Amino acid sequence: MQEILPNASQVHQKYMSLALLEAEKALRNREVPIGAVVIHQGAVVGRGHNMVETLNDPTAHAEMIAITAACETLQTKYLHNCTLYVTLEPCPMCAGALVWSKIPTVVFGAIDEKSGGCGSLFNICENNNLNHQIEIIQGVLELDCSEMIKQWFKSKRL
Amino acid sequence: MQEILPNASQVHQKYMSLALLEAEKALRNREVPIGAVVIHQGAVVGRGHNMVETLNDPTAHAEMIAITAACETLQTKYLHNCTLYVTLEPCPMCAGALVWSKIPTVVFGAIDEKSGGCGSLFNICENNNLNHQIEIIQGVLELDCSEMIKQWFKSKRL
Repeated sequence: MQEILPNASQVHQKYMSLALLEAEKALRNREVPIGAVVIHQGAVVGRGHNMVETLNDPTAHAEMIAITAACETLQTKYLHNCTLYVTLEPCPMCAGALVWSKIPTVVFGAIDEKSGGCGSLFNICENNNLNHQIEIIQGVLELDCSEMIKQWFKSKRL
Repeated sequence: MQEILPNASQVHQKYMSLALLEAEKALRNREVPIGAVVIHQGAVVGRGHNMVETLNDPTAHAEMIAITAACETLQTKYLHNCTLYVTLEPCPMCAGALVWSKIPTVVFGAIDEKSGGCGSLFNICENNNLNHQIEIIQGVLELDCSEMIKQWFKSKRL
């Protein structure tokens, strides 16, 4: 009997759900709700949620924390054969970090039109002058990801 | 009697010398020799040197470590009234982090024509679409800064 494998879209949704769980952790800590996970051979090897306010550190974005955690888990400075899932398009800082990590693929949910570093304001991940280019897949669970951030900003204005 | 104050150029050279001392620490640890300091009211509040190999972490650039250290010292996520001195033009990751930190001024030594994020490959620090722009001063102790990096790469090829 042939095994029924999940298709790529289902796999992406599964891992983006884990990134959304990370974003919820940020939400509970009154941070902008953004979450990320790094997947290697089907396992989570790094996870992170936005901790800028908690740590008083402007570099403490979900992706940065997830990258550092994954490198610690895998004991390497390169995330070959990994995929990072993040609820919002990475900013220029995080896009730059992802290029340095040599990760082959990044999947994100909502687009950050104002300051996105993966095609919106800059396209750092696919720039041919850098020594690594990243495949970008966008729009996975986009509504869930964007709605969580929108609601957060709306609540701040009340 | 009028006090003779050092001119801006001398001040920049003084603090860039401290960044060069940080770069030497990286050199001793067999890292690409790049160093950074954050100055606030004439005092060093954060310092960092490249630790990518030591920590197995592609995000562990001199500027990132110096920013996080300065935020810790000042107990704030914003580096208002600070200046970061770094021996090499910040990459896109570090340039993005500096914009998030809202630091008003960045001074660097050598230009990174290949992947610089402050005017060479990207100009993240002065982009008007982001919510903060940074004054960039370049070329301070440029020869010392570039020579240290060139010698390091030369030694690696032998």
